[in-house]
Amino acid sequence: MKKKVFSLLAGSFVIASTASAAPPTVETLSISLDMVWIMVGALLVFFMHAGFAMVESGFTRSKNTLNILMKNFLTVSIASILYLAVGYAIMFGGTFQGLIGTNGFFLQGHEGEIGFFVFQAMFAATCATIISGAVAERMKLSQYLLLTILMVALVYPVVGHWVWGDGWLASLGFTDFAGSTVVHLTGALGAIVAVKFLGARIGKYSKGKVNAIPGHNIPLGALGVFILWFGWFGFNGGSTLAADPSLIPHVITTTLLSASGGVIASAFYTQIKYKRIDASLTLNGALAGLVGITAGTGDVSPIGAIIIGLIAGIILVEGVQLLDKVLKLDDPVGAIAVHGICGVWGTLAVGLFATSGGLFYGDGISLLGVQALGILAVIVWTISVVTVYLFVVTRVTSLRVSKEEEISGLDFAEHGSSAYELKESLLSDQQSEPSSEFGTGLVHRLNSIGTKAKASEF
Amino acid sequence: MKKKVFSLLAGSFVIASTASAAPPTVETLSISLDMVWIMVGALLVFFMHAGFAMVESGFTRSKNTLNILMKNFLTVSIASILYLAVGYAIMFGGTFQGLIGTNGFFLQGHEGEIGFFVFQAMFAATCATIISGAVAERMKLSQYLLLTILMVALVYPVVGHWVWGDGWLASLGFTDFAGSTVVHLTGALGAIVAVKFLGARIGKYSKGKVNAIPGHNIPLGALGVFILWFGWFGFNGGSTLAADPSLIPHVITTTLLSASGGVIASAFYTQIKYKRIDASLTLNGALAGLVGITAGTGDVSPIGAIIIGLIAGIILVEGVQLLDKVLKLDDPVGAIAVHGICGVWGTLAVGLFATSGGLFYGDGISLLGVQALGILAVIVWTISVVTVYLFVVTRVTSLRVSKEEEISGLDFAEHGSSAYELKESLLSDQQSEPSSEFGTGLVHRLNSIGTKAKASEF
Amino acid sequence: MKKKVFSLLAGSFVIASTASAAPPTVETLSISLDMVWIMVGALLVFFMHAGFAMVESGFTRSKNTLNILMKNFLTVSIASILYLAVGYAIMFGGTFQGLIGTNGFFLQGHEGEIGFFVFQAMFAATCATIISGAVAERMKLSQYLLLTILMVALVYPVVGHWVWGDGWLASLGFTDFAGSTVVHLTGALGAIVAVKFLGARIGKYSKGKVNAIPGHNIPLGALGVFILWFGWFGFNGGSTLAADPSLIPHVITTTLLSASGGVIASAFYTQIKYKRIDASLTLNGALAGLVGITAGTGDVSPIGAIIIGLIAGIILVEGVQLLDKVLKLDDPVGAIAVHGICGVWGTLAVGLFATSGGLFYGDGISLLGVQALGILAVIVWTISVVTVYLFVVTRVTSLRVSKEEEISGLDFAEHGSSAYELKESLLSDQQSEPSSEFGTGLVHRLNSIGTKAKASEF
Repeated sequence: MKKKVFSLLAGSFVIASTASAAPPTVETLSISLDMVWIMVGALLVFFMHAGFAMVESGFTRSKNTLNILMKNFLTVSIASILYLAVGYAIMFGGTFQGLIGTNGFFLQGHEGEIGFFVFQAMFAATCATIISGAVAERMKLSQYLLLTILMVALVYPVVGHWVWGDGWLASLGFTDFAGSTVVHLTGALGAIVAVKFLGARIGKYSKGKVNAIPGHNIPLGALGVFILWFGWFGFNGGSTLAADPSLIPHVITTTLLSASGGVIASAFYTQIKYKRIDASLTLNGALAGLVGITAGTGDVSPIGAIIIGLIAGIILVEGVQLLDKVLKLDDPVGAIAVHGICGVWGTLAVGLFATSGGLFYGDGISLLGVQALGILAVIVWTISVVTVYLFVVTRVTSLRVSKEEEISGLDFAEHGSSAYELKESLLSDQQSEPSSEFGTGLVHRLNSIGTKAKASEF
Repeated sequence: MKKKVFSLLAGSFVIASTASAAPPTVETLSISLDMVWIMVGALLVFFMHAGFAMVESGFTRSKNTLNILMKNFLTVSIASILYLAVGYAIMFGGTFQGLIGTNGFFLQGHEGEIGFFVFQAMFAATCATIISGAVAERMKLSQYLLLTILMVALVYPVVGHWVWGDGWLASLGFTDFAGSTVVHLTGALGAIVAVKFLGARIGKYSKGKVNAIPGHNIPLGALGVFILWFGWFGFNGGSTLAADPSLIPHVITTTLLSASGGVIASAFYTQIKYKRIDASLTLNGALAGLVGITAGTGDVSPIGAIIIGLIAGIILVEGVQLLDKVLKLDDPVGAIAVHGICGVWGTLAVGLFATSGGLFYGDGISLLGVQALGILAVIVWTISVVTVYLFVVTRVTSLRVSKEEEISGLDFAEHGSSAYELKESLLSDQQSEPSSEFGTGLVHRLNSIGTKAKASEF
Repeated sequence: MKKKVFSLLAGSFVIASTASAAPPTVETLSISLDMVWIMVGALLVFFMHAGFAMVESGFTRSKNTLNILMKNFLTVSIASILYLAVGYAIMFGGTFQGLIGTNGFFLQGHEGEIGFFVFQAMFAATCATIISGAVAERMKLSQYLLLTILMVALVYPVVGHWVWGDGWLASLGFTDFAGSTVVHLTGALGAIVAVKFLGARIGKYSKGKVNAIPGHNIPLGALGVFILWFGWFGFNGGSTLAADPSLIPHVITTTLLSASGGVIASAFYTQIKYKRIDASLTLNGALAGLVGITAGTGDVSPIGAIIIGLIAGIILVEGVQLLDKVLKLDDPVGAIAVHGICGVWGTLAVGLFATSGGLFYGDGISLLGVQALGILAVIVWTISVVTVYLFVVTRVTSLRVSKEEEISGLDFAEHGSSAYELKESLLSDQQSEPSSEFGTGLVHRLNSIGTKAKASEF
């Protein structure tokens, strides 16, 4: 914002700007406009990380909140840098046999693609952060971060190369507009394997019973869902990759309608099944509808979108049940059901509802077959790599915090602090005595919760 | 985000994109740019629902929080689908005598208007959700949803047709740029009637006294106000319906200044009146300034906007007093004062402050007269329809939850759960024993609050 | 949104709009597109105020939350109006000797610059609000607001004129793309002086010990950091002042990478230093990386941005220590370290990392020298003016609330209320008895906390 540019700008709404060396043409303006739209999309996708952080914090216990927040902040940070260094090259670099990209590390030779890179970098972080919710409340932060590195540097960009790069699934016609499979299913598959190796939280399954462990702050979680929904318009809308006036409003509309269908279906299905509208499942119903429409947002009709969302909302309720009670995969926030099961549904739904190519539009089952094949390939790849990796890791060390740390909460065990300090306002009106501290004045606090716990790190 | 498009995009910031069949022209670019701006506006209006949800949650009691969140999520979901099916056709379909639109159900024959539709769909949901705050803490969710359907499918689109469609008020020159009357007053009128039929919350008016029932989480409410203010720039800014560089900055500026005026006036007026700056009224002062400028945002000067906002802030304080103490309309979040009284003020202010047509600019009282006539017509229409509807409904069933449910809180009564579970971190450092559950592991929880309550739905 | 415009718009995605009198040209479209991008930036900068409010609320005690929220709302409101009246003229009006602008009060004669004005107005409010966090929990609201007026009407716009207007630092080549110095350092310098005059909070430094006073709601603070990060893309991105496809993605990328570097460095540096990842410092690490890249976002490479962010994250941790323990400046939220120390770092970093002009790119130390000179000038100017002002004020009155008010909390003392009312849900399941009130039903509440406190204003 240097002075020279300023003076020009100040008058630029009156007279034509002369800031650029070359005068604009229709071609440069078209590029500029596409870029503005993609950047808006990128920023909205970035903001989804706030949504994930609030959903995951709100739907878990307050003693693990700081830990979850750290996971979310570190995920987006590590993923952004790692995607610059490695991920983008593997995903969009020149292909080796349709399997993997091989150049463009640190964008070398691809400098002109920086706008597309930053949009994609936001996506990469999204895939990784899906896991953080499923493994919440018991996974070591260090182990989580190593898994994040694996996902961002290898697992996700390979899938992305197959579908969005010059990959073999793309060449078969596999259709995943904004990532029901590429982003959401891939993340959920990583989560499934991690949860399998980790095991359930203490107290989740005891004496043959399945216990509910309620989240501590549902309004925060609900805010997170709204933020995710808001950001998702950029996730799907930005994936048009051009300011195309015939496509963008269609994408925004189908995204809105499918999420709406998800909310309505989850609400009324829980009303029928449990005789009341379940709040947490209804909130997850919005996400189910969003994941469900992500693959087909550009290819299905508005009414198709409503139906996809309604079905996603029901699948979500049954999916949570299945995972929680039958498969006994302890997923505190429902990430596997939302991103995994609904990711599969969304990808298959393209084969059914695509107005061009869909089974319900008389175009046969070939697209549906390709969609199924793609899902299968992603499942095999992701499950294999993450399983091998975690198998090796668990020979050497544990993925979990100690039992004492889990009980006292990861906030104290890993961060020496707690997320809330509401006592003084709730329980008494006397001045809260500032606690002695040994770190920095800004942050460390060993409150009564903390000092009594047995944290092995201390 | 298919591979083919990707490759082109990847280089599109360097070379001209060849993604579209036809090369762009000045005309197509102009359309694309308008569309991008309107979509940005639509997304910001969507995000206002997060703001409403946080304001309404924060300003009410924690025992009713889940219920309010469900109302907000279901409102935007039902409204979006219903506006596609019915509302848009009534509002923007071909007119019958300037009274009501008659075609375009499910956008049939209006497919090219999908961008405009989705922008308008966000508005429709806004109108409906205004009611949810006013009826909070005692209205049955099912009855609230039926009222929402009435508002979105009939009441609001008819008003919209009169003012923004080919309606009779539009032909008279009635001016409501972004909806002080169409959206806010209409919603508030529905709220007034609903509150009249519902009655006050238990304990609000007892033994001739007016009792305050404080909100439980003002920071969340304050965040909601900031989100609403942020979204309002899209509400007013997007209503330009074109990327007009002489109009949009003007709208953003007047919106900012009027809201600022509202904050300042409410703060200092409460300082004078109550000898302290009242936090809740000051937060509502921002919203008062925003509602106040909504009708005239494109037609008044920056200084006019400041004055409109300052007056709105004072009106808000007195309006809340009037409704709460004199009219005894129990509105937990102040929605009627904010959206109703300030909606009237904003609509009349156009007749005073419009730089073209306004009384204060020497253009006489004819515009002011038309504005007053429009307000009157909307009052008669909305009050009539909602009164008739609720009169019929209340012959058959009750709008309210039972006394026991209200006392125990709607969260338990309608959702079998509670919004917060902070006990373990606040009251003890022992592990919270996961409660037994009978629904799904993710969600259901019958904590000590719940199990003692007498909820008739169980 | 008048009907006439509507009908045209409804079909505008199909046929060319005829809404404007004159048909669009390449030149008008270019102006429109620049304006759309700058407006998107302006709105994102506005939203940063929600981020500041949440960070400052969350990182302080719950008994002072309403007070902080009022500070934030009043800051943006007063600043917006004052910047229209005075600030913009001083900053961007015709210069007097390169020192101060002299015309354009209320935009008179500068009406065509309204878009640029509103973007800048959002920035002005940002500079002022930085102080509110540092002086939290003990400064009188009235005195804070007077200081805000000084900052927005004089201190900040003079600095802005030097660097971004026709000022002497601009003519020397001082480079501050989006305001590491202009906005962040200036705000932090005001904060340093204010904290010096105010003194520390009661209990912060006692008997030679430095006590930690933990924040009450870290999830809210973390949300605030995410909102600030999101808004910062508009802060830096909008400062391009044009929809330049070669510059904007670069700015978004360097902003993302530097913030990521800040998070990672703070996290791992606290892990090394304190044997655990400190949550509050890591959250502030994101802000450190953002302040650090603000000056050079358009001029450094992606890898340069990562390095700047990593160093900012370490500087932040040491800076907080230095201020808290050595200089004994009690800054509850770490604003001085984040905005001041990292603001200096970011400004100097341009002289090191700018790909054109930077020392590390072989272009010598001349740019670095200019950067240092500019920093020095801003320090002298801001410290001088604020010191003189506060010296005079403190001869007349106190900046601080009384000891009793500070202990009972500013929320009760200044606003007669409290931010939370969670008792009924947490501590009992009996109906909370609505408290008697004397103000308005919506807001006033003298709960048990309040009535026992000795508030001198009552």
